[in-house]
Amino acid sequence: MPPTTNATPPVDPSRTGSRPVRVVIAPDAFKGSATAAEVARHLADGVLAAAPDAQVTLLPMADGGEGTLDALLSVWGVEARELTTVDAIGRPHRARYGVSADGRIGVVELAAASGLPGVSDVGLQPLHAHTRGTGALAAAVLDAGVEEVVVCLGGSASTDGGAGLLTGLGARLLAHSPATVPSSTDDELAGRLVPDGGEGLARVVGLDLDALHPRAREVRWRLAVDVTNPLVGERGAAAVFGPQKGASEADVAFLDAALGRWADLLERRTGVRTHDLPGAGAAGGVPAALVAVLGAELEHGATLVAEAIGLPAAVADADLVLTGEGSFDSQSVSGKVADAVGALAAASTGRPPVVVIAGQVLLPARRARAAGITAAFSIAPGPIDLDELMGRTPTRLTEVAASVTSLYLGSWR
Amino acid sequence: MPPTTNATPPVDPSRTGSRPVRVVIAPDAFKGSATAAEVARHLADGVLAAAPDAQVTLLPMADGGEGTLDALLSVWGVEARELTTVDAIGRPHRARYGVSADGRIGVVELAAASGLPGVSDVGLQPLHAHTRGTGALAAAVLDAGVEEVVVCLGGSASTDGGAGLLTGLGARLLAHSPATVPSSTDDELAGRLVPDGGEGLARVVGLDLDALHPRAREVRWRLAVDVTNPLVGERGAAAVFGPQKGASEADVAFLDAALGRWADLLERRTGVRTHDLPGAGAAGGVPAALVAVLGAELEHGATLVAEAIGLPAAVADADLVLTGEGSFDSQSVSGKVADAVGALAAASTGRPPVVVIAGQVLLPARRARAAGITAAFSIAPGPIDLDELMGRTPTRLTEVAASVTSLYLGSWR
Repeated sequence: MPPTTNATPPVDPSRTGSRPVRVVIAPDAFKGSATAAEVARHLADGVLAAAPDAQVTLLPMADGGEGTLDALLSVWGVEARELTTVDAIGRPHRARYGVSADGRIGVVELAAASGLPGVSDVGLQPLHAHTRGTGALAAAVLDAGVEEVVVCLGGSASTDGGAGLLTGLGARLLAHSPATVPSSTDDELAGRLVPDGGEGLARVVGLDLDALHPRAREVRWRLAVDVTNPLVGERGAAAVFGPQKGASEADVAFLDAALGRWADLLERRTGVRTHDLPGAGAAGGVPAALVAVLGAELEHGATLVAEAIGLPAAVADADLVLTGEGSFDSQSVSGKVADAVGALAAASTGRPPVVVIAGQVLLPARRARAAGITAAFSIAPGPIDLDELMGRTPTRLTEVAASVTSLYLGSWR
Repeated sequence: MPPTTNATPPVDPSRTGSRPVRVVIAPDAFKGSATAAEVARHLADGVLAAAPDAQVTLLPMADGGEGTLDALLSVWGVEARELTTVDAIGRPHRARYGVSADGRIGVVELAAASGLPGVSDVGLQPLHAHTRGTGALAAAVLDAGVEEVVVCLGGSASTDGGAGLLTGLGARLLAHSPATVPSSTDDELAGRLVPDGGEGLARVVGLDLDALHPRAREVRWRLAVDVTNPLVGERGAAAVFGPQKGASEADVAFLDAALGRWADLLERRTGVRTHDLPGAGAAGGVPAALVAVLGAELEHGATLVAEAIGLPAAVADADLVLTGEGSFDSQSVSGKVADAVGALAAASTGRPPVVVIAGQVLLPARRARAAGITAAFSIAPGPIDLDELMGRTPTRLTEVAASVTSLYLGSWR
């Protein structure tokens, strides 16, 4: 259940009607300055300053990328678990994951184990970075007995088609098909394993699932994505996201070909074709392996999170909805948190106004309204530089939320 | 009559009730980037973008200081008149003044003729700057046949106790009382006139009103002030405002003594004591002469302007009131435009919400509410420097007004 700040008697019933105003607060994190849970609390302070009797429901949101684990843990009211796994280049690395209070849902963030920031000290390694560390996290989640694993994609350092993630779950990627060497010993088999990462992926000719985690195919895998890119081709994982992971033009061509052959192999093995699947290009192609081998479902990240925290029901019952994010721009209304919140409000019968409170507001009001956003305000108090604004984020969130609430109540009878 | 953008049929009657929403727009100027009339138009664009059927009333405001003439002209729908008068150090100078469309009210701004900016090329002249040029403007207004003269104080370069303004209206300031030289010729009399400015003021021993403009004592003089300082003493015109006009410590003492002797003379001549009159310290003591000799009334500038443009009635009939200014800070709620607008709304039976849209918002929401301001938003879209924000003022005013209107309508049934 989401935490609810309970009602005190109305201070001025003539302005707030016969019942307390119900405000749902569902912001994204302000990256670099406040988590979604912190943003929600600062906004709530402002709402309650303007309307002390308000019934405020805090539902910190995320878009399925970085920060999703924290948002879910905050709403579930549980602590993160930790595991020593490996980072995107195989070095020992502590990473957090989560299991819901009822033990039913496990959550891993690809960025937590296999993210770019974790290997920033050694520079970009487009051909060697991999997702095996995330596979180990996923194995721990399976060990915990969950029925459902949410994998948050985004922020990855790798382009390995999810081969590393499968490896972390016990699969073995072979350089020569074991079928051609029926009498091999374990050591011989090990000698034929390809190395992690995109370079190794290019040499895979066989996939051995005998040692795959026993629960891997028993649970429901939900992949939170926020892109629709296919696995390969001009709009594929290597072409579009490779360069930001350090891939040269030649690397992109190499990785795109490797992903294509990997998808061929997966299709031969499972019958599932992932080459052109919308979203399969997320996180260096991770969905390819998980969809083909584990039957994973690709879901719109923010919508998945909204459902996981009970946001649809809360919005349907709200008088006013506050959301927010660091930058409210054209990306915001194409699959990010504000878009999901706006869509939920627009689809509810009460159609509560949705107000975005953001570090910066770049989207014209006209376009915001088209996405179900009633109004958008920046927390900038005037001319100010980024560092100072980030430092003042807590008080400014509170101040703007107070103004928004006062204005809302000013016409709410 | 204020200009009104007339109603078109409601676009979405279910959200706006059975009649169009009535929005009154009464901002101050954004100094350095937009006049009050321009700000009002940009805000109206945003209101109408969010509520095409809104009935929008534009009443650009001012606080009785700089910009008041433009605000009044805009609401009256008349052009400024111009006159060649003299600046604060006696050089020929074109200055604007205004007469209402019905010819009843004349307006002069002290800053237009006798302001600091007009003499910025020659540096501050605390002992010589004077207000004679404003007197010539006032004479032109009297010639136009008005019944009432509004004098906007503030922005003056001088500390002359209003002696110059009287001189411009025809009075003569004598260095020796004419009573002691009964047979003097005009030339001899001219030789005994004191020079303009605070230095001359110290030598005045007589006041000859024989040549005063014949209508000067027939009209109602209203002085728009926004300070409560007395004429003399520690909180007087010389001590508090002298330094910013270039007065040294010695100059301040000299000017304070001169103002005191001038007030003594005025009291002997008229029976009216102005030494300690709250507000008499405005604009280098101009009120002293005008109150004593012409029976002028000191009025709170923003309130005077609000009445002159019909704002009280408009606010009483409004659903939503927008105001704004360059900087919304603690000064704003002690006698400036936002304060006056907030007070009008709080005193009206409908108590419409008042929203401040400002270049920067420095006042906490709590203190704004105490002053009758429902909500305050900055036009800053995020981290931004002053120059860029000033350049984007028009579009940002429109954007924020659109968001404010949408949010207001979101709960207005």
